Amino acid sequence: MFTVIGERINMTRKRIREEVWKRNAGFISAEAASQAKAGATHIDLNAGGDPAKEVEDMIWLTEVVSAAVKVPLVFDSTNTQALEAGLLLCNREGTIINSITAEKSRTENILPLVKKFNTGVVGLTMDDRGIPEDFEGRIRITRDLAKIVAAHGIGIGRVYFDHLVRPASTNPGQARFILDAIAATRAEFPEAHFALGLSNISFGLPVRNNLNRAFAAMLIATGCDGAIIDPREEGMMNTIYSARAALGLDEFCMDYISAHREGKLS
Amino acid sequence: MFTVIGERINMTRKRIREEVWKRNAGFISAEAASQAKAGATHIDLNAGGDPAKEVEDMIWLTEVVSAAVKVPLVFDSTNTQALEAGLLLCNREGTIINSITAEKSRTENILPLVKKFNTGVVGLTMDDRGIPEDFEGRIRITRDLAKIVAAHGIGIGRVYFDHLVRPASTNPGQARFILDAIAATRAEFPEAHFALGLSNISFGLPVRNNLNRAFAAMLIATGCDGAIIDPREEGMMNTIYSARAALGLDEFCMDYISAHREGKLS
Repeated sequence: MFTVIGERINMTRKRIREEVWKRNAGFISAEAASQAKAGATHIDLNAGGDPAKEVEDMIWLTEVVSAAVKVPLVFDSTNTQALEAGLLLCNREGTIINSITAEKSRTENILPLVKKFNTGVVGLTMDDRGIPEDFEGRIRITRDLAKIVAAHGIGIGRVYFDHLVRPASTNPGQARFILDAIAATRAEFPEAHFALGLSNISFGLPVRNNLNRAFAAMLIATGCDGAIIDPREEGMMNTIYSARAALGLDEFCMDYISAHREGKLS
Repeated sequence: MFTVIGERINMTRKRIREEVWKRNAGFISAEAASQAKAGATHIDLNAGGDPAKEVEDMIWLTEVVSAAVKVPLVFDSTNTQALEAGLLLCNREGTIINSITAEKSRTENILPLVKKFNTGVVGLTMDDRGIPEDFEGRIRITRDLAKIVAAHGIGIGRVYFDHLVRPASTNPGQARFILDAIAATRAEFPEAHFALGLSNISFGLPVRNNLNRAFAAMLIATGCDGAIIDPREEGMMNTIYSARAALGLDEFCMDYISAHREGKLS
């Protein structure tokens, strides 16, 4: 089982912001349904268009998207009021809050909600000092986060780590320590999950699609079991099915063969 | 630098066999040139159509292909006469003999040619007992091969290991130990190279292309620096460029950006 968090409904994207503010429920429903159809196991909702309207926008998004799809939602905000408003409307099995870091302000505000609503939580490996640019720094923060969630009585199996990926064009070689950090995290916390925002790898480069897919395959081989992606991106779901089939994570390739029968492998 | 051995000119394929026996130089030249244009760094020649004609077929293939492309050839046979006939006609810098195993008959017949013509050699990790179905077995044979080539005065840097890949459909989980074997081989013999016949991973499954590409990306992340593939397979070269760019093996993504400018990334 691979966690696919569909990232398209994000109000920092101009088109989404405009359609939400028009209250165009048809457009947003179609965005949600098409991602679920493509293979999203979760739909991310980011209502960060205008801080003054975030709570009401999150309420509207939650109502529209929860009616359009059956999969759990991922509430993506640093505004605890927006998170709580969404969770009160829809808290399906598998719901996730996106995200905490090891910054004190983030954990103190958000972990009580994770605890109260019994959700999962995305954990970004950065802290008050920023994003460490090496393996050791990422692992140090991974351990810090594990201690912090434990102190709140939250099991590590509810954490989805995101070892923040930087663009290959500006940070050559970082993918190597990101992959190593995933393997190390998997080895030290076998119950933990991942939700990598992987497409940042190709930022600034042409023809990004193949780069995203090649990176996805490597991540899966290293132990990554989830990503925040656009499941409608050409060939991305096929790459995920393929990588799992190649590795024998998909026993006797049955998911792969089913996906083929359902016309999901192009 | 990634070694791409173009596998298309193989007389065990019916169409190639027919065109070689028709002495259709135009067809074979085009097969060679199109692979080199797509990104092959080497062109494999397998003249195994009819054992009685293998020497004359290898001579004809070598003449035709060496005139069609400038890249070095890979002489792919267990027939030492065929190998020597080809090598006498064309022994460019980078030429490779395909292949030895740790079987005594193979090493005793073929390594003297590797030595005499100063070529590279593909080393398949199997021995008289067959292909071991575990990590330990592959590493044992890797070490055996390293000792055998050293005893013939051949540097390990001239060996291209092929940790024979089995289909994911029939051998679930083997990809895991193949990847581990590549990492271990790379760590123990940093000067050695690889030439994985990777597309066997998808044998027996539908829509093989994405599976091959996902596996290629994983292999590259694990330290594999070469493969025996069809460089004309859709998106395969793009995947290789992408994987190397993602990992920072292609410094500042310059190869990737050049390939894009040359229209090689579709």
